[in-house]
Amino acid sequence: SSASTPIRATLFPGDGIGPEIAESVKQVFREADVPIEWEEHYVGTEIDPRTQSFLTWESLESVRKNGVGLKGPMATPIGKGHRSLNLTLRKELNLYANVRPCYSLPGYKTRYDNVDLVTIRENTEGEYSGLEHQVVRGVVESLKIITRQASLRVAEYAFHYAKAHGRERVSAIHKANIMQKTDGLFLKCCREVAEKYPEIKYEEVVIDNCCMMLVKNPALFDVLVMPNLYGDIISDLCAGLIGGLGLTPSCNIGEGGIALAEAVHGSAPDIAGKNLANPTALLLSAVTMLRHLELHDKADRIQNAILSTIAEGKFRTADLGGSSSTSDFTQAIVDHL
Amino acid sequence: SSASTPIRATLFPGDGIGPEIAESVKQVFREADVPIEWEEHYVGTEIDPRTQSFLTWESLESVRKNGVGLKGPMATPIGKGHRSLNLTLRKELNLYANVRPCYSLPGYKTRYDNVDLVTIRENTEGEYSGLEHQVVRGVVESLKIITRQASLRVAEYAFHYAKAHGRERVSAIHKANIMQKTDGLFLKCCREVAEKYPEIKYEEVVIDNCCMMLVKNPALFDVLVMPNLYGDIISDLCAGLIGGLGLTPSCNIGEGGIALAEAVHGSAPDIAGKNLANPTALLLSAVTMLRHLELHDKADRIQNAILSTIAEGKFRTADLGGSSSTSDFTQAIVDHL
Ligand SMILES: CC(C)[C@H](C(=O)O)[C@@H](O)C(=O)O
Ligand SMILES: CC(C)[C@H](C(=O)O)[C@@H](O)C(=O)O
Repeated sequence: SSASTPIRATLFPGDGIGPEIAESVKQVFREADVPIEWEEHYVGTEIDPRTQSFLTWESLESVRKNGVGLKGPMATPIGKGHRSLNLTLRKELNLYANVRPCYSLPGYKTRYDNVDLVTIRENTEGEYSGLEHQVVRGVVESLKIITRQASLRVAEYAFHYAKAHGRERVSAIHKANIMQKTDGLFLKCCREVAEKYPEIKYEEVVIDNCCMMLVKNPALFDVLVMPNLYGDIISDLCAGLIGGLGLTPSCNIGEGGIALAEAVHGSAPDIAGKNLANPTALLLSAVTMLRHLELHDKADRIQNAILSTIAEGKFRTADLGGSSSTSDFTQAIVDHL
Repeated sequence: SSASTPIRATLFPGDGIGPEIAESVKQVFREADVPIEWEEHYVGTEIDPRTQSFLTWESLESVRKNGVGLKGPMATPIGKGHRSLNLTLRKELNLYANVRPCYSLPGYKTRYDNVDLVTIRENTEGEYSGLEHQVVRGVVESLKIITRQASLRVAEYAFHYAKAHGRERVSAIHKANIMQKTDGLFLKCCREVAEKYPEIKYEEVVIDNCCMMLVKNPALFDVLVMPNLYGDIISDLCAGLIGGLGLTPSCNIGEGGIALAEAVHGSAPDIAGKNLANPTALLLSAVTMLRHLELHDKADRIQNAILSTIAEGKFRTADLGGSSSTSDFTQAIVDHL
């Protein structure tokens, strides 16, 4: 409750529209009496040699210490000699699972009205190994790495998540008919974990077929777990079904129970500072952070206020076809609390 | 014209529903006076050591000699020591580009009514190299191979196709922000070819964003060209937009101008021999073969008859919500010729 010691959480407002939408989250959390005290960190203006990126060592330490954080969009500065901000966070904090709940928003019409699924993406290896080289001139190769350890870890998380959230089924997405060893190992690990959760149904779906089924009938899916690149592709595809990245929450889970929630859309520099941005993805991501902290009452209250505001349709930002400002939309959410 | 020497084409009826839907094609071609003489080849019952698969050497020679062929579904027999039939065909015939026109069928309602695009997939390398190994226990890797030669070849084909078919734009699909060397080389080759076709617009789209845009608004795309796995995924996703693999044609282009058209759906053993199968994908694939032979009058006539029959809606097979048999549907197409 709000009377107890506040929980410290790291906040990366990020770039572009980041600070404005982070302001929305702070306001809504304040009004809902969420017992969180934000520790704000900005992306640095110089490369920090300890992180090889524009992220400061202190900001990473803050997430490690607090165990929870929320991140707005961060545009990776252009130039050589440093790593992408997003990839640095994943690597340095060992954020091994990217979790994206994706559901149709009542009252916001797309071609689909029955989406309710969660994609869980392995976030540390696979096609993102960074291991690439030229074999001879005109012949290059990249390595896809699949390990038993990382596959078991993400599979465990997927089944744990399914059980904790009352979900019925986990589908492992793969292309093991072609990549028999790598995707084969991934499936083997999923099967091992599945055996420990007899109450959760388990199935395996080939990625091409999965994408076809998703666009034909997304209601066929519940929780999906998959290697890195497939997760990258399918989570964006699913976001598209319900309206896009401006509406979908995301949360990264790391070793030792770290959770870093994030809006995965871009920093939209063209509308930055104009009070036009849609804070929904960051707000819903903040809600996943509350759930991770098991503050379910606060999470429900805020999520309902967001969804009711969108459903009502009186206050919507331009990307959703409305003409509200960020602050009017935020105020409407506060009024719904 | 039908009076001149007939063109010989190889026909692989394939397994399951294959022979029935191949029968449809033969009937429609006969009735439309298509000057083609089929040379039928069946999948063997034993492994042919010269192909290491159940495909006979003679059947491959037939496609090589004729330069054109049509293939029904082929279920790869289960067991060790041989290669998948589809992969054998691609490798042995060097079928380097898989071309799938995908368009909304008038009168057959899905969530999308404005799809009109063509996916062109590199079909010989990339993630399908088959090069995989265990590094240490619990750590496996697969190699994705991208070569300048194969990338230029498929890019050339894509631009050539776009120009020949009056298409305006080619989009290269990639993940070069992560796989900078492999997908980077693929893009470099596409750019080189794009410069030779100033009349065709060229753009590059990251695969995750591409999938999101495809489900939000497929009308944004025209011709898409991409490495093997992305093509596998996106071509099935696109098929889903217009109703599934039972409705989409596919054609493989090989070195020396070989064209092997194919229905990419399964062999549906459950309904095989029952006169229930939908021959549309094989028929439309046969149409792409006619276009490859520049028999555009015949192609138009047959394609119109197929589309009108589906649009009319009186004769539809069960997969499209109707109750017609394969032969009644085929007869309806013949009546529309
Ligand atoms: C920006 C890019 C490196 C990133 C990824 O591919 O993982 C993004 O697409 C995402 O999904 O977070
Ligand atoms: C059956 C499978 C090997 C094949 C592929 O992955 O290429 C199929 O999905 C296809 O698209 O033709």
